[in-house]
Amino acid sequence: MARGKQPLALDLALPFELSAKPSARKHQLLYAFLQELLACGHLAPGTRLPSTRTLAQRWGVARGTVELVFEQLALEGCILRRQGAGSVVAPLRPDALIAANDQPLATLACTREPAPCVSPAALPETRLQTGVPFVARLADPTLLEQRHLQLAADALATITDSVPHAGDMLLRKAIAAHIRLYRGIECDVEDIVVTQGIRHTLHFISQWLQQDDAIALEDPGYSWAARMFEQTGRRVICVAVDQAGLDVGQLATHDNVRAVHTTPAHQAPLGICMSVQRRQALLDWAQTRDGYIVEDDYDSEYNYACAPLPAIKALDQHDRVLFCGSFNKTLFSGLRLGFAVVPRTLRARFIDWLAATGQTPGIIAQRTVRQYLLRGHYERHLRIARQTYQRRRDLLLERLAAEPGMTVSGEQSGLHFVLWLPDGVSEQAFCERARQRGLVLQPIGLFCRQHTWPAGVLIGYAALTDEQIAAAAQVLVEVYWASLPR
Amino acid sequence: MARGKQPLALDLALPFELSAKPSARKHQLLYAFLQELLACGHLAPGTRLPSTRTLAQRWGVARGTVELVFEQLALEGCILRRQGAGSVVAPLRPDALIAANDQPLATLACTREPAPCVSPAALPETRLQTGVPFVARLADPTLLEQRHLQLAADALATITDSVPHAGDMLLRKAIAAHIRLYRGIECDVEDIVVTQGIRHTLHFISQWLQQDDAIALEDPGYSWAARMFEQTGRRVICVAVDQAGLDVGQLATHDNVRAVHTTPAHQAPLGICMSVQRRQALLDWAQTRDGYIVEDDYDSEYNYACAPLPAIKALDQHDRVLFCGSFNKTLFSGLRLGFAVVPRTLRARFIDWLAATGQTPGIIAQRTVRQYLLRGHYERHLRIARQTYQRRRDLLLERLAAEPGMTVSGEQSGLHFVLWLPDGVSEQAFCERARQRGLVLQPIGLFCRQHTWPAGVLIGYAALTDEQIAAAAQVLVEVYWASLPR
Repeated sequence: MARGKQPLALDLALPFELSAKPSARKHQLLYAFLQELLACGHLAPGTRLPSTRTLAQRWGVARGTVELVFEQLALEGCILRRQGAGSVVAPLRPDALIAANDQPLATLACTREPAPCVSPAALPETRLQTGVPFVARLADPTLLEQRHLQLAADALATITDSVPHAGDMLLRKAIAAHIRLYRGIECDVEDIVVTQGIRHTLHFISQWLQQDDAIALEDPGYSWAARMFEQTGRRVICVAVDQAGLDVGQLATHDNVRAVHTTPAHQAPLGICMSVQRRQALLDWAQTRDGYIVEDDYDSEYNYACAPLPAIKALDQHDRVLFCGSFNKTLFSGLRLGFAVVPRTLRARFIDWLAATGQTPGIIAQRTVRQYLLRGHYERHLRIARQTYQRRRDLLLERLAAEPGMTVSGEQSGLHFVLWLPDGVSEQAFCERARQRGLVLQPIGLFCRQHTWPAGVLIGYAALTDEQIAAAAQVLVEVYWASLPR
Repeated sequence: MARGKQPLALDLALPFELSAKPSARKHQLLYAFLQELLACGHLAPGTRLPSTRTLAQRWGVARGTVELVFEQLALEGCILRRQGAGSVVAPLRPDALIAANDQPLATLACTREPAPCVSPAALPETRLQTGVPFVARLADPTLLEQRHLQLAADALATITDSVPHAGDMLLRKAIAAHIRLYRGIECDVEDIVVTQGIRHTLHFISQWLQQDDAIALEDPGYSWAARMFEQTGRRVICVAVDQAGLDVGQLATHDNVRAVHTTPAHQAPLGICMSVQRRQALLDWAQTRDGYIVEDDYDSEYNYACAPLPAIKALDQHDRVLFCGSFNKTLFSGLRLGFAVVPRTLRARFIDWLAATGQTPGIIAQRTVRQYLLRGHYERHLRIARQTYQRRRDLLLERLAAEPGMTVSGEQSGLHFVLWLPDGVSEQAFCERARQRGLVLQPIGLFCRQHTWPAGVLIGYAALTDEQIAAAAQVLVEVYWASLPR
């Protein structure tokens, strides 16, 4: 629990309408949004709310607007405001809200957030690379309070119970509650399948696809995905990425595309947040072509500028999105535990595949993570990690901003950003020069297959200390200027 | 630790020569066998040896023979014999033995043992069926001392360390030591890959096979294997089983057979122990045809009459056997942890597949089981479980033996045996009649694909209490007599 004993809502997804219709009356919209969260019990009694200042900043609205909304909710007895001590959800829900509970929850939605870090074949995910500038694009394991991951006695007492192939019920319930609040996804326990991580879900997709089906991948994109689908004999279609994300229009030019793998939150590796229009266009494509969207959501937990955009799954009216999340990125890579929100049409097939191949994740890890979530440790860890990574990113960005002409992008979220190279500088030469000075950089070109991008390199900062960042930034600047054509 | 604080060797595999050449001088053979185990450190100083009475019984030799061998080893200072307190491995190894350490260990070998229990599609493995007569063919979870499975603080401190894709080093080391002693397999840490269980290994095989390759399966056989290979689009060849096990001769009649899945220890579901001649013939086939043997060793831990035959892998001179074991059967099915001893030619491919598909088992379970093995809890658990299952089996067999004409087989090991039905009785009718009386029986026919066997049903007894066994046996006898043709 953060400060004191009350649970604190980590972050609240931005209401989708706020991003889609900026002209709408924000006060009404936010009021309805919070009231629904309270009515459905997604914000449990006693939960401490983020401050109005924090919410205003993350939602991109005036603080006065949030103040008004909080005042109204307090007047109605839904929340308790305490001078200097923040606001908490009222212990007893007013009758009006209990009645509202029968109504379906309106679409929840969020804003921009970070992207899945790429794990190219050249860098196995299990090599943490902690402290190696700048390949430190994985979570920093030293931030984890490991004692909270201890398997508790009550979980141990029933560890020989049979576990459903789709995963432990209470773990799935905790995951459903988490992604409802933070990713805007409305789903039931039955929609969730516990996996070993995102690649595990992708492997299922590769097994589910038929011989003639093609899978569309972002280019540049997540290298492991391309490797996996090709290794398992699937036809891979490369789709270009532009400043709004995956170029959905290109999908129409390919027959037989049955599924699309995408990283809308923070494109891997470019860090682009897919626009709302593209998200809708992708959903339309899926509905028209009987296709599926595999939404790879990793790193979405780390966003520094504002609350994240809702997942595409949150907008999915026709059950066309298979949403994949992972604890391997947010906790530690050796955990091997993730989850998927699976469309009804694929669910039985997915669970049957897990059973037949003996790949249901082990109950010990499931019970451990279940406790970690239920006791609020996970949200606390994410909050601390986000603050830490933001501080490290800012330290690095400040140093680079002091140099005229250095351009970065994709820095708003995730665990890395892109540093663009000056015209005429080759990625290979730049990386080699950096390597000689002790910096491990990955060129954008490493992630490109058919489509090319201007020269750039990935800068991972999450698992570096402040001292490492200061020293490495100095070297990076020197390498940058030394590589300029004379 | 069993009784006191000294480790006790659970069981010692029967020297292969003893089963192959019953005319050889047993005394010399056993002496050389034990001396080698001591020389290589497989029996660590201080380890308590089984009594001469126990070893004589399990090796099928006169007690006097074992006495002679022990006396000789004691004279040489290799073991310490204490009146009434058993024998222990001497704390300091004599020089002669240390010198012998440089020599390669001769082939270790064992005798008959139990077979993999079938987990047909009709009965998902995670449904434990504890206490339901007679489908209780899984380990009894109530025998597990769960407190020993607690993840210790020292394991927790390093849980965010990166873990090799092939599995935790110390866990693999513990597995290598275990199967060296109890399955006669001489292997290094590098030969071992940690998996989620036997089906996980089979899934790798299905991915490794080429389009034209066929996989040969025992018929009747392990239903999940057939299901898996067919689901993943592989060509399946059914090979008949006779009283000596898999009919190796039939393999020659099929082209393109690249791998054979077999359950030599206690054939699933018939309970037959594959003969030594057949084992050799299978190895010859693999060597001649550039094929691989997938040795599915589950349930080999439970053998009641004598020490188990060595694994085929123990005789494998040409690295043709992929040996699979599992902790899911011996501990509890939700654990999802097993291992494989992988031929050199397949190793890189196997590990690469685990990495690319994100299917390396989680580090929490690996560390937990590693401690369980290293602290001796696993051997203690197996010993207690074996004694318990034997008692339950004996209780059931005694009751059935009181009825004239009832025939069983495959009872020497494993967690189930076969009850053969009288001529003219249909399996379906018998099972239906039993079901009406509360007994769940599985007919042999359920496991047959192309080849037929006389009518019989599987009787699982491992996870039943004495009271359940007594009551269910009474009902079974009544159903048996009532089903006889009038």
